[in-house]
Amino acid sequence: MSDSFRFQLLATHGTARAGVFSTPHGDIETPTFAPVGTQASVKGLTPSQLIDLNTQLVLANTYHLYMRPGDDLIAEMGGLHTFMSWERPILTDSGGFQVFSLGDINSINKDGVTFQNHLDGSRHTFTPERAIKIQENLGADIIMAFDECPDPYDREYNEQALERTHDWAKRCKEAKRRSDQALFGIVQGGVFPDLRVQSARFIDSLDFPGNAIGGLSVGESKEEMYQIISAVNKHLPSHKPRYLMGVGTPLDLIHGILRGIDLFDCVQPTRLARHKAAFTKTGRMNVGKKMYASDPSPLIQDCTCYTCKHFSRAYLRHLVQQKELLASTLLSIHNIHVLLSLTEGLRTAIIENSLSSFLEGYLQDTYISLPISL
Amino acid sequence: MSDSFRFQLLATHGTARAGVFSTPHGDIETPTFAPVGTQASVKGLTPSQLIDLNTQLVLANTYHLYMRPGDDLIAEMGGLHTFMSWERPILTDSGGFQVFSLGDINSINKDGVTFQNHLDGSRHTFTPERAIKIQENLGADIIMAFDECPDPYDREYNEQALERTHDWAKRCKEAKRRSDQALFGIVQGGVFPDLRVQSARFIDSLDFPGNAIGGLSVGESKEEMYQIISAVNKHLPSHKPRYLMGVGTPLDLIHGILRGIDLFDCVQPTRLARHKAAFTKTGRMNVGKKMYASDPSPLIQDCTCYTCKHFSRAYLRHLVQQKELLASTLLSIHNIHVLLSLTEGLRTAIIENSLSSFLEGYLQDTYISLPISL
Repeated sequence: MSDSFRFQLLATHGTARAGVFSTPHGDIETPTFAPVGTQASVKGLTPSQLIDLNTQLVLANTYHLYMRPGDDLIAEMGGLHTFMSWERPILTDSGGFQVFSLGDINSINKDGVTFQNHLDGSRHTFTPERAIKIQENLGADIIMAFDECPDPYDREYNEQALERTHDWAKRCKEAKRRSDQALFGIVQGGVFPDLRVQSARFIDSLDFPGNAIGGLSVGESKEEMYQIISAVNKHLPSHKPRYLMGVGTPLDLIHGILRGIDLFDCVQPTRLARHKAAFTKTGRMNVGKKMYASDPSPLIQDCTCYTCKHFSRAYLRHLVQQKELLASTLLSIHNIHVLLSLTEGLRTAIIENSLSSFLEGYLQDTYISLPISL
Repeated sequence: MSDSFRFQLLATHGTARAGVFSTPHGDIETPTFAPVGTQASVKGLTPSQLIDLNTQLVLANTYHLYMRPGDDLIAEMGGLHTFMSWERPILTDSGGFQVFSLGDINSINKDGVTFQNHLDGSRHTFTPERAIKIQENLGADIIMAFDECPDPYDREYNEQALERTHDWAKRCKEAKRRSDQALFGIVQGGVFPDLRVQSARFIDSLDFPGNAIGGLSVGESKEEMYQIISAVNKHLPSHKPRYLMGVGTPLDLIHGILRGIDLFDCVQPTRLARHKAAFTKTGRMNVGKKMYASDPSPLIQDCTCYTCKHFSRAYLRHLVQQKELLASTLLSIHNIHVLLSLTEGLRTAIIENSLSSFLEGYLQDTYISLPISL
């Protein structure tokens, strides 16, 4: 690991941990959640609003930024931090997930993936070397290895894809040049515990400064997801940060953190906001419902976010009914706050050895109980 | 005028003036511009962002709020200030302009207007008494008399409409009950100076705590508009605030203020923002243009708004191209700032007796010159 990056564990409780990951753009107190700025913008929120939310890390999508406005342009503008005016840490994914979910795949082979893009049908090839080069142009603090994201239930495909993903991880490591970026490896293997363990061992052997679990929350059951996290984390070193990609509901964060995850990202809080939905402590509510039309209470009683401190359900319902832009902003503020205040609460509880009582308090009235020791 | 409202003139320069209008929700330093929150929300901006912009007064639309979510509901929720969480002064229009521009008019007579609304075709009747009752339910600090807004070039129609508008103004004054609201009269009369003067005299005779000029910026030439403002203001008392409705470009604000206007409102800064346009000092620029794709400079050099301090034209161009929500927010912040910093600058210049040099500085490099004494 470069001198710029350091992961310090402050406390553990079972497999759960609290730590600090140092980057060239500042410390990330873990566990934490990263809001997603697909196009170098967390939809509807200014950097100032993200800072008010105590956002420590923002994710941006390599695939989208490579397409528009182009990684060369962003490099010319001084890199992503300057371009989007975000001075704190940034993480970019490798583009792998989007190539496989948005692109029209022409061919996948040992070298990389050729696909037509979802915007204009133009043809592109992503190789591990290309994915690293693009991410070096973008200039995030944490960058990701290029991986293949297969159907999680197709055993044969997962075996083949895993070979490529492991080979590509090695090539990403070799291709990387910048010392002010930390490259994380990604564990794949679908819903198959043996493949996942095999992948975790291999990725660990490449000695990345951090490790991620990819290909989850893509259709498998919660039980499958949680079991895989537990199985994988046993084989990922505890002195390095663990990042669960694309996961971001309150309950998934709790489950992940209890199993030793340090970082999360997900479009959920902002995407739900654009679809009229607000996170409750463990679920969600559709703010557009008529039952809220004259409800003077905030989204969540005692929530300390800007939205809940200033606006009623009645007002928010009015905004979503009238398709006001502000609805999306205010619901995004609330939804991100729910996740960040939860990870902050869990972090403090791990440090203060009060995890059980924190979770009891958090989950009271929800009829949900969680095993604390895993 | 109720004790809650007081207009104090601090300084004048020719017909231009600087003052303070006191309301139950605080002082409004004039001249100033009011951003429009049609649906009880200034599109894309939080109240906190509006306060950062030094917004003193927000306008909300009676017609829209009567339709959705209903003025009764807003009253039940504690009034507009509580509903939209805006603790500073609010102004509501009377609904007149929207009835005539959005409604499908069924009949206009001495009593009022019957129309079908633009959303669902339902039938409604607005009378002066109804317009006041709705505005009392909404609870703004400044409310407006119900007026008719005819084609500005149709002499005969304007003569007939003016009779109704004057009669309705009297009835609005009689119908008004709340002492914590100031009712402003509205001068109409199309592009006809004699009708305008007749209207100004009549409205003045009703002794409202403030007077407005309506029916401008609806298709007439700038010269016609500026001449009418000058003609009308000669007959509106100088010890009461003068409000030019629906006007809001930098040059129109300068012209209006030089002619003795104290208050302005307009959807322009936020509407232009949603259509990719940013105010320059005296015009506008289309941020979506390819020429800005790799332009690292801010929208306006030396502009002190949040947007210009943090983001390049290249980034803003990327956001508008990708239809990111943030584009609208950032351009709205800039556009409102341009208008508010201009009115603040003019106010200070009037007080410090430096109007000529302020305007010279503001207009330099724009090849626009204005007569300072009007």
